[in-house]
Amino acid sequence: MTQPLATWVDGEQRASLPATDRGLQYGDGLFETIVCRTGKLRFLALHRERLQQGLDRLRIPFDAHAAGLTADLERARQLASAAAPAGAIVKLVVTRGDSQARGYHVTGQESARRIVTVWPDTPLPDSTRTAGVAVRFGQLRLGENPALAGLKHLNRLELVLARMEWQDAGIFDALLADGNGDVVSGTMSNVFALQGQTLLTPPVDRCGIAGVMRAVVLREAAAALGLTVSVARMSRAALLAADSIFLTNARIGILPVREVAQHRFAIMPAVVDLMRQVERLDA
Amino acid sequence: MTQPLATWVDGEQRASLPATDRGLQYGDGLFETIVCRTGKLRFLALHRERLQQGLDRLRIPFDAHAAGLTADLERARQLASAAAPAGAIVKLVVTRGDSQARGYHVTGQESARRIVTVWPDTPLPDSTRTAGVAVRFGQLRLGENPALAGLKHLNRLELVLARMEWQDAGIFDALLADGNGDVVSGTMSNVFALQGQTLLTPPVDRCGIAGVMRAVVLREAAAALGLTVSVARMSRAALLAADSIFLTNARIGILPVREVAQHRFAIMPAVVDLMRQVERLDA
Repeated sequence: MTQPLATWVDGEQRASLPATDRGLQYGDGLFETIVCRTGKLRFLALHRERLQQGLDRLRIPFDAHAAGLTADLERARQLASAAAPAGAIVKLVVTRGDSQARGYHVTGQESARRIVTVWPDTPLPDSTRTAGVAVRFGQLRLGENPALAGLKHLNRLELVLARMEWQDAGIFDALLADGNGDVVSGTMSNVFALQGQTLLTPPVDRCGIAGVMRAVVLREAAAALGLTVSVARMSRAALLAADSIFLTNARIGILPVREVAQHRFAIMPAVVDLMRQVERLDA
Repeated sequence: MTQPLATWVDGEQRASLPATDRGLQYGDGLFETIVCRTGKLRFLALHRERLQQGLDRLRIPFDAHAAGLTADLERARQLASAAAPAGAIVKLVVTRGDSQARGYHVTGQESARRIVTVWPDTPLPDSTRTAGVAVRFGQLRLGENPALAGLKHLNRLELVLARMEWQDAGIFDALLADGNGDVVSGTMSNVFALQGQTLLTPPVDRCGIAGVMRAVVLREAAAALGLTVSVARMSRAALLAADSIFLTNARIGILPVREVAQHRFAIMPAVVDLMRQVERLDA
């Protein structure tokens, strides 16, 4: 059992929160999973930008400055750097705060709550990056809801169920499809396919999460390497026809896939270049 | 601001729980909303049956007997009877328990957590029942996922957003449709349409919640009044063509609708009979 190194709730070091919190009652909140490495919270600006977009979409009033979010994160960074120099994950949860009455209704009197947890984390070994990982196709189909799509919100039961489909430690993640059978993402990662000089990734406008590392690849990394980027729906067959496949998330960065459901993939040099490129960014 | 009269976490009277609880982190759990009236937890057997079905579907190991759930509920019943004789709601949340590591993965070492909260509740006035309520059509479309459909799980962000669509206190609930435009349920209720001697309600196999009061009507009440029951998909147009419409949930029982989005409905005698019938059941 791994325990967090520390937890702060609304800036106070404590490990508990009220049972009336709407994050618990309804999953009414958002989270960010931020990597701390060599004393730095990686891609912090992108995490904060996505958080704010999510809060806006859920209409959770939150003034990051007044709320002391910067101090929260700096406290977490300091602890992570000192206590887990090899690497740590700072998980930030922001909920709408306590229920002001029973029921879904938002009264407007709620006050958003921040929960910051620091977890020790061992970065993936270089040999895993070089060899690539094996993934499977998940059976669970992601439900579609444009109102929630893309957000890193707290309603993650689908992904919990999807993650329960396999126990084999040799499988790194499962690729999940939507109701049409199009591939959307892994349970904890976004997915990209390299086809010639084009990088393809599915849209996250009906389901899925707009990962920070996905944004890094789309906005910065691909262009730096002269790749064309295309956000487009992708069948399983189209995915299996790609030259290379890789996964992304904040923790793993870019991670090549060597095998999808017994189909083997080459790790093209462009993927290795992209991986190294992202590791250098914001370092 | 309404506060709960009391909260117990795993049988102990306290109002907080660990931030590592998977109910908060992922919405990994279920809930029941049980009415306490005249010293009795109404339809308790049905609530317990549905909870167990949900736990089984989410594969949350939970031995209700060993866990002391009966003692939890009895404690809540006693407090509710004494402190809120006019009526109370006992909200029972069961989560998968604390994360044993960071991430969605279920290790099998989790231990389910019970959170019981007692809220004072004023039953609906008889005049509201007689006059019926006004409802609107919601804009938000419910996402579809058979793996989660029917369950009263903690991923309720869709319903929070749907409830944010209106502020008018004269609107009791909003009827929500799925991606095909078929009516599924209210934000906090199931919906029935009476057409001649047939009672229709939408299935909850792709989205929606299998309400306890919905089950009461389907299993017992309708037959007692000689009505035929049909669980079938229902367009907005089909709903608007019904003779009468009513909502159900544990708190409201059966509640006639007088108006849907400006369309007026009669409250047929069979609906009043059904409402009285359900009020007498399990009393």
